[in-house]
Parts: sequence; structure tokens; C-alpha cells
Amino acid sequence: MRMVDLIEKKAERQALSREEIEAIVRGYVAGRIPDYQMSAFLMAVVFAGMDQRESADLTLAMMRSGDQIDLSALPGVKVDKHSTGGVGDTTTLVVAPLVAACGGTVAKMSGRGLGHTGGTLDKLESIPGLRIEQSMERFFEIVSDIGVAVIGQSGNLVPADKKMYALRDVTGTVRSIPLIAGSIMSKKLAAGADAIVLDVKVGSGAFMRTVPEARQLARLMVDIGALLDRRVVAVITDMNQPLGLAVGNALEVREAVELLSGKIPEGDPLFEVCMLLGTHMLLLSGLAGDEAEARAKLLDALRSGRGLERLRRMVAAEGGDAAYIDLARIDELCAVRRKIPVYPERDGYISGMNAEKIGTAAQMLGAGRATKDDVIDHAVGLVMHRRFGDAVKRDEALCTLYVNDEKRLEEATDCLRSAIEISGARPEPQPMVYGVVR
Amino acid sequence: MRMVDLIEKKAERQALSREEIEAIVRGYVAGRIPDYQMSAFLMAVVFAGMDQRESADLTLAMMRSGDQIDLSALPGVKVDKHSTGGVGDTTTLVVAPLVAACGGTVAKMSGRGLGHTGGTLDKLESIPGLRIEQSMERFFEIVSDIGVAVIGQSGNLVPADKKMYALRDVTGTVRSIPLIAGSIMSKKLAAGADAIVLDVKVGSGAFMRTVPEARQLARLMVDIGALLDRRVVAVITDMNQPLGLAVGNALEVREAVELLSGKIPEGDPLFEVCMLLGTHMLLLSGLAGDEAEARAKLLDALRSGRGLERLRRMVAAEGGDAAYIDLARIDELCAVRRKIPVYPERDGYISGMNAEKIGTAAQMLGAGRATKDDVIDHAVGLVMHRRFGDAVKRDEALCTLYVNDEKRLEEATDCLRSAIEISGARPEPQPMVYGVVR
Repeated sequence: MRMVDLIEKKAERQALSREEIEAIVRGYVAGRIPDYQMSAFLMAVVFAGMDQRESADLTLAMMRSGDQIDLSALPGVKVDKHSTGGVGDTTTLVVAPLVAACGGTVAKMSGRGLGHTGGTLDKLESIPGLRIEQSMERFFEIVSDIGVAVIGQSGNLVPADKKMYALRDVTGTVRSIPLIAGSIMSKKLAAGADAIVLDVKVGSGAFMRTVPEARQLARLMVDIGALLDRRVVAVITDMNQPLGLAVGNALEVREAVELLSGKIPEGDPLFEVCMLLGTHMLLLSGLAGDEAEARAKLLDALRSGRGLERLRRMVAAEGGDAAYIDLARIDELCAVRRKIPVYPERDGYISGMNAEKIGTAAQMLGAGRATKDDVIDHAVGLVMHRRFGDAVKRDEALCTLYVNDEKRLEEATDCLRSAIEISGARPEPQPMVYGVVR
Repeated sequence: MRMVDLIEKKAERQALSREEIEAIVRGYVAGRIPDYQMSAFLMAVVFAGMDQRESADLTLAMMRSGDQIDLSALPGVKVDKHSTGGVGDTTTLVVAPLVAACGGTVAKMSGRGLGHTGGTLDKLESIPGLRIEQSMERFFEIVSDIGVAVIGQSGNLVPADKKMYALRDVTGTVRSIPLIAGSIMSKKLAAGADAIVLDVKVGSGAFMRTVPEARQLARLMVDIGALLDRRVVAVITDMNQPLGLAVGNALEVREAVELLSGKIPEGDPLFEVCMLLGTHMLLLSGLAGDEAEARAKLLDALRSGRGLERLRRMVAAEGGDAAYIDLARIDELCAVRRKIPVYPERDGYISGMNAEKIGTAAQMLGAGRATKDDVIDHAVGLVMHRRFGDAVKRDEALCTLYVNDEKRLEEATDCLRSAIEISGARPEPQPMVYGVVR
């Protein structure tokens, strides 16, 4: 089996066999297949695609390239959630404790943010003392005790994805639905969960810009899951505006604590997406018979304070100072030199938002990384005061910037302003959820 | 200008500017752009294509990557011909001397054979003493004296093509019409001719398998020529069977000598394709007013023996023993240990031929190279006795193999047999020429 023949086969839009796909992934990880052949192959996939079976075989081959975590020693259905990446998306910090409080088992390995998107690990690290690196023994112990742990990737999980992603990033081969699905699903499957709820974001702040694309990715990932014997459900949710109002690490932890403390009303986008994800996590876990029952359980866990309590215990178990996980103290994590309000240039209604630019504005203030090696400032970022469709007035702040380093303040302010479109008429409301794929 | 952005632009099917294409070619030749980015880019071109203007810019950028030969010191219109590669295609050895005998100027750099296709340089080297490497001074001197010289590539012509072709060969990116056109035309233009007649082969033994593909390549190369101020005409000719009857180096020189000695009748495919190419070379050179006049001049040069005389003088000028360029002595170059007839398995008509397999059979006998470093045996090969549509009988040889090394004889015989399809009914005749693009 020569790599050049496999590249040509894909370039001729033929489907590759499982053995061929395995040979490519193994050969590449082992260094037998050079980057220049792999990048040509990946570009052929960008154009010619892969069918469902090929995508599942790719996922499997990638998953098998490294360690696989066996969660079977933990009780019940191990349920995971994954978001394709967005702005102001702090759902994990809300949903994981809530699901645990409802009897679920959430043993989750999470990631860091890059570019305009945030990452749960960075948010957790804004809590003093918290260590996202935990031994597997301790990880299991925490999940056994509390029902939930969110930690950093441990061991050599999916080295094929690391190597392939680094190559895709510099060869214009990122935007391919089968490659994105393989990358996400190989990591989720290697992390060992029995059931996975995927949140596929669509819109200006998301990787998928259109609903049909998002639906295609969702469908493919659910199908891959089914072929590989996992229970997978995908929800397609809006990312044309930040999901929560806060964008920044400690700021998002604060919003999660507010939500878990009952300070955010039903109907709020972050609240509702958390309920949606939690509902499907409970359903996949067999802990609720239908959506109404699941929602009722989640609301009860929230209102009783059991959700917040789980978050607090998890933070403590991971070495963090849980005293901050309290409305009375959480503001201390968000202390900055200056809080700068940003006002709209005219009265009107917010008729468009570009979530990527809002995320980028927060990144410019130090909340995110442009490259993997950048150091972030956990306290900084921004808090929106208005959402899509809201009325705005020139003398009422749109948003508050949380600033320590003012070096890129002007640039960030311009970026934020350019993200907000204001018009004279109230726009049609946008959906928050575009569908559920199962 | 980051290469990854240019790759993405092409992957999104956008046209690249001249500056962008130049940056890619220059960056790649200089080693600033790594192979893994170039191969992804080339695969994007395979799928997304390039328009006429982009293809011309690619050709120009490739041409400028190395030396360019200035033929302006030579008199008149310098005319070149190029075949996209075929089996039994010895037209250069016939047409170049004939055109010179009609007053044309043919200063030609030729190539070697690879795989199932032959190369003029290898054929010339079957003549004892002949050196295909000549200094530029001597090259100009020979052309000035005789009107024709065919030599090997001199200097550093189109290093971009060498580097890009080596990469394309191992990354499944060979089959792209703009890349093929850029590769051919950059070399032809760098070699300095004012006018070029292209012979685009189509069929089982050619790179282009269908007439529409061949027409597209022909059109693009002619248009590139026009954009870059050269006179270019392309003919599209059949390569579903070997053009001549001989396949092998000395065997093809012998067939050229036979043709130039008047031993091959009008109407024969090799004869007619030589006339067609020669006609357009004379027309582009301004040496004939119309096709009839051009053909008459070529026929006169042939029948008077002036064509053969030019070939003989060119061979002598390049150090070869011209005494062999004579019907009486040419057989000595084709002396082999064994001549083995191959008989058909049944009576009938030849209803199909696979020219690639016939070329491969000759290569297996030692007439061609599987890799660039293989050593060839100039005397071996095969001579067909029947053409497409001819009646065959079990006791009449289809073909004679010229063999020195019998190691792969059986394999070659099987390959040859598998190339010939015999059926009970005489097939419809096939065209020899599919069109002229100008």
C-alpha cells in the first residue's frame, strides 16, 4: 500500500477502506508518511470528503493512536459533554455539577482556549490553588466521591490528532467536516465516556458559520458515535452572540456561580442552553424518562443549591479555594485596575453581533491566547449588558471592559464596537437552538 | 502574504493574483515554503483548478525560476515542437530535419523517456558516438550550419518544475491540467522558441485519456502562449495504439530513417502525424502560406532525400557516426540476441490496443526506465506488424520482440498480449487526428 496511491484514490473521490485509513494514520504518527504526503491527502479530503463509514474508521484509527481511558471502574453511565467552541460559553461549569447533583457521573477532560474562544481549563485556573493536572487515581477518586471532575488531558491521548491538527493548521485543511468530526470524536471516545452530548455552535463566533454545515457535522458525529457503540446526541445552538454575558475566565466562573445561585432567570440563553445540555445528559444517562422530567430534576438541583455545592466540592477536591465559589466572594477573582464602560454610538436596537470579534476583543485585553504559548490574565475580559435585539441608548453602557494592561485597550474597544450593529428598528428575534440530532 | 492564507484562498476556489502565484513559486524554489504546504496547495489546484490568467502567471513564474535561453542570435523564426508523451512516437527525428530542410530553424532541447513513454534523447543515444550534451556555443553553431539541433537540457532551466514535479509525483497531484500546462509551457518558453507546435496525445497510451481533457489542455497551452507572446498551435492526436510500428530506441531511429528514405507510405499514422506537425511548424515559421503548400514542401524535402541528409548532418555534428543513418546500415543498431515473434491467440481483427501496456512491454525488455536511474538497452524493444482494425491470423506474428536480457521476457510477452484485443468483426476505424487548436 503506497501512500501516493491512497492519495490518488481519495483525489479521485473514491472511498478508502478501513485498512487504508488505518495505514495512513499509523504511518503518519510513526513518521513513515511524511508531512508533504499527509497534507496533500488532507486537502484531498477537504474537497472529496469522506462518507460516514470512512469518517468512523478515521475516528477509530485516530483514537487508537494513543492511550484510551477506561472509565468502567466508575459507577453508572459516564456522560461527557463537548462544545465545538464559542464565546461566553461557560456551560460546562454549570451543567457538569448539575448533572452530578442529579446522580450523573461526569468524568471529563477539558481543553484550553485558543484565539477568540475560551476553554474550561483556563476558567478553572482562575480559582486560586486549583490544579487542572490530576493523576488518574485522584481523578477517579474525585468522580467517585462527588460525581464530577473536570481536569486537563492526562497521558498520551490521541497523538494522531495533535500531529494532524498542527499540520492542518498551516496547510489550509482545517475546514473539513470529516476531519473536524474525527478530531473531536477521537478525543471524546479516547476519554472513555459511554454517552456524549455535543453542542455544535453555529454563527459568527463559531467554526460552523451556517446551520446546514452545523447540521452536517452534528449528524456525522452522532453517526460515528453510533457506529462505535456510544450514545451520542448533538444540539445545534446559536453563536451569533456570546452565549453568556461574560467573556473572560474569572468573569465566566462568576456567571456560572450566579446561574447556580439562582441569579439568572429561565429564558436567558446561557440558562436555557445549560438546561438543554443537562436534559440530554440525564436522558442518555438513564436518569430521566423524558425531557420534562430531566428539566424538573435539573431545576430542583439548581434551586436547592445542590448544583453549586457540587461545583464547590469539585473545586476543593482539585485543590482550589472553594470559598470563592460564593456570590459574596466571587467578585474578588474579577478585581482589575479599571472597569471601562463602552457606550453605543447611537440610539437604536442591536440588529447584529459578531461573536468572534467580541471574543477577540476579550483576547486583546489578555483573556485569551493568540498562540499556544501566550500567558493569559484570568481576571480581565468584558461583560455585555445588552443582547441581540435589545434597545440601546447612547448614555447607557453596552458593555464593561475589565482591564489590567491598557496596551491594546484602544484596539480592543474598536474591535468590540465593530462587532455590534445598531439599527433603527427592532430586528426579528433569532433562534437560540436550531435542532437536536440523535 | 502567508502561504496558509494563499492555500485557503485556492481551497475556497478563488483566483490567485500574479503576485501571489509568484510568491508561491519563488518561495518554494528558495525553500521558504516547505513541501507540506506546497503539496496541500497543489492538491487544492487539482480540485479547484486555475483560470487561464492564473495558469499563464504560473507558467511565467516557473519559467523565471531559472535560466532562459535567448535564441535571438539565430536567424528567422525559431520553431519547436513538443509531444505530451506517447509510445512509438519518433516524430521529432523525422520532422525536425524535414522542417530544417524546408528552411526552418529548429533549436530543440529534448527529454528522456520515463515509464512506458520514450524520449528523443534516448533514441539519439542509440547512435554510436552521439553526445546529447553540447555547449550553448556548439548548439548555436550546429543550428546555424544545419538548421536543426536536438540536444539535452543545458543549464538550470526551470528549477521550479524539477522541484514541483518531484513533489507532484509522490503526492497524487500530477493529474491537473493547469499544472501540466505550466510544467510543459514553462520549459518550452524557457528554451526560447518563438513558435511552438504541441502534439497533445490522447488515448490509452497518453496522459490525457479523453478527447475533452486533451482539448482543454491544448486550449490552455495555446492561450498561455498567446498571453506570453508566443505563437502556439496544438494538434490533438491519437495514442490508443503506438504511433509508429517500432517501440524501442534504435528501433524508432530505424523507423525514422525508413520514413525519411521514402519507405513508409502516405496515410500511415506516423507519416501523417509528421506531416501535420511539420505543416504547422512551417506555417508558424512563415515558410508556407497554407497547409497544401506546407505539405508539398515537406514531401519534396522527404522525396529528394534532403530531410534524411539533414538528420545525417545533425548526427555527425553531435559526434554520432552518421554512417548508420542509412537503410543499409541502420539494422546494425538493432542487433539483438533473439527476435521473438508473438502470435495472436485467435483469428480475427484487432478491435482494441492499449498503448501504455505495449510501451510497458518494451520497457520490461529493457527499452525504458521504471525509475530515473535505470540503465536502458538501446537495441531492444518491439516492432508491431499489425495496427488497430487489421485482420490477424494465429499463424501470422502480431509483433516481434527484440530481446537481449530474457529475465522479464515472459512478463513482457503477457503484458503485450493483454494489450491487444481481438474480436470477430472488423471494428469502426478510429480517427488519427482529433483537432487542431490555435
